[in-house]
Amino acid sequence: MDHFSPIVIERPALRALDQTLLPAVEHWRDLRDLESICEAVASLRVRGAPLLGIVGAAGVAVASESRGVALETLGAIATRLGSVRPTAIELATGAASAVDAVRALPEGQRSEALWRHAHEYLLRRVEEDEALGQFGAPLLPSGANVLTHCNTGALATGGIGTALGVIQVAWHEGRLARCYATETRPLLQGARLTAWELARAGIPATLLPDTAAASLIASGQIEAVITGADRIALNGDTANKVGTYGLAVAAARHHVPFYIAAPRTTFDPTCPTGANIPIEFRSPVEVGGFGGQRWSPEGIDAYNPAFDVTPAELITAFITEVGVVSAPFARAIEDILKAP
Amino acid sequence: MDHFSPIVIERPALRALDQTLLPAVEHWRDLRDLESICEAVASLRVRGAPLLGIVGAAGVAVASESRGVALETLGAIATRLGSVRPTAIELATGAASAVDAVRALPEGQRSEALWRHAHEYLLRRVEEDEALGQFGAPLLPSGANVLTHCNTGALATGGIGTALGVIQVAWHEGRLARCYATETRPLLQGARLTAWELARAGIPATLLPDTAAASLIASGQIEAVITGADRIALNGDTANKVGTYGLAVAAARHHVPFYIAAPRTTFDPTCPTGANIPIEFRSPVEVGGFGGQRWSPEGIDAYNPAFDVTPAELITAFITEVGVVSAPFARAIEDILKAP
Repeated sequence: MDHFSPIVIERPALRALDQTLLPAVEHWRDLRDLESICEAVASLRVRGAPLLGIVGAAGVAVASESRGVALETLGAIATRLGSVRPTAIELATGAASAVDAVRALPEGQRSEALWRHAHEYLLRRVEEDEALGQFGAPLLPSGANVLTHCNTGALATGGIGTALGVIQVAWHEGRLARCYATETRPLLQGARLTAWELARAGIPATLLPDTAAASLIASGQIEAVITGADRIALNGDTANKVGTYGLAVAAARHHVPFYIAAPRTTFDPTCPTGANIPIEFRSPVEVGGFGGQRWSPEGIDAYNPAFDVTPAELITAFITEVGVVSAPFARAIEDILKAP
Repeated sequence: MDHFSPIVIERPALRALDQTLLPAVEHWRDLRDLESICEAVASLRVRGAPLLGIVGAAGVAVASESRGVALETLGAIATRLGSVRPTAIELATGAASAVDAVRALPEGQRSEALWRHAHEYLLRRVEEDEALGQFGAPLLPSGANVLTHCNTGALATGGIGTALGVIQVAWHEGRLARCYATETRPLLQGARLTAWELARAGIPATLLPDTAAASLIASGQIEAVITGADRIALNGDTANKVGTYGLAVAAARHHVPFYIAAPRTTFDPTCPTGANIPIEFRSPVEVGGFGGQRWSPEGIDAYNPAFDVTPAELITAFITEVGVVSAPFARAIEDILKAP
């Protein structure tokens, strides 16, 4: 499926859409050295776990242009890249995969191979999203109104997206009537990024305050809720952007199917249940204001978890690039992680 | 109980705190004629249904200073005041009560009586909030952490508030550990007004994005949720600020008591159930931005109901100025509406 990509790998540079300026301005940056890539990652100009994997792989290729391809150098580049956002494990994974890909090659072939690896890494991501979308779309009834949360589109993955990829495939297959997107406080990824992607794709879209989601679900206008995931435990408990749990509770109350769309890499073999998933708490400054604007009195305490955990019992199915995982989850997740 | 008041009735003017400038600026306005009162109401410088009742009553007194006290004149003033926010029924009720209070009096006594009526109207409001707070506070366990939504304090009622009044009484009685307040998108009454009132009262307060409420409740840190109400049907179904329903669903799932604090005037004898309560939808412009700042692409459709309806089965009890109403609600509500 044709899709928009927020990054372009073009030796000797990585071109990236500056996501901090969206939706007001579409500004592309040429990232030509390690420091400009690290700056773009640190300041969230590029963000989204799967997209950061690609940036990690491509970042090693970009940096090698000026720093050389000695294994020690490449290892140091990968370490530096991974250190910029240590919780975004895919960034480090992508960078390390680039070093591994050329480890056995003579130095004269490494440069070429690093760029080829970066292209392949991106292509695999695109193919996985496409496969995930193809598995997910048939779950939606024809003429479905779907509710989603946060941003899980091309801006986050480099492919068609995960939850938003399912929505895009459903739209192209004529199954989707409308996508409802939450604003997603505090960082407003829904209002800023998902709304922009939906408008760009020409998909009928409606934005809502997070507060309106439960009564929208209760109104009977929503046929399915689909979100992405940041980490999934082996029993199916799922950590995702804060607010996901409230949507799942409301969906369950009104018997609306609740789907998680995520690549297999999101399942964490080290986490038996959601209780093992650490939750990142972010700066209180994000609450009571946005950007330069403050609404609340200075100095007020804030509760600002980045994620919440939705228990497996509230999840109808997981949509992955190798198929749909239905309950009972523990065995099905084990099987899907073993699949080729 | 001592409390802050956002209005001061002082012949020949009504002094009002401009709530549109909070929390950054505490600016008081002297409203000395009908048009300046109408402007302050229309632009939400004064807001909150119970407070508007007082403004209606005092507004007739203020306007009569320059326009005279002929019954026809007073009736026209009351009609004009009520027309500024037609859905805020208490504004019209307060204004009409002022006309009724002087109808039987000779003209020479009306001016004095209008000011006395306005003072009494405010005083009754203060006493009702105080009584409501006294009934509600004992429902909270000692050391309680309480979650509230939107603004239901002095800024909304002129007294100590309804839900926030219960919280203030509980704090003064030493029963409250901390008040958690949602931001309350889209108009951010929690972040702007409740946070300001809590800080002003010296009550330990924590602000949270609406998205974080469900997982906060799930975490076991909240002993009770208390909100106000905009209209309550005779079976106990309750319309309140959008987002209330989602909090009630999450509270029920985790067996956290969910209380509605509202004066008896909030019960609507013309509404048998929540299905009879009309829901106001507001401008899409409120979604995807705030104040002058826009986050979302221009022209995106938005779903923006001002209220949602929480079914009676999710409500633990109603707290009113004449006592606590517990399930089964239909009979208990009938009784409380008949009480003197």
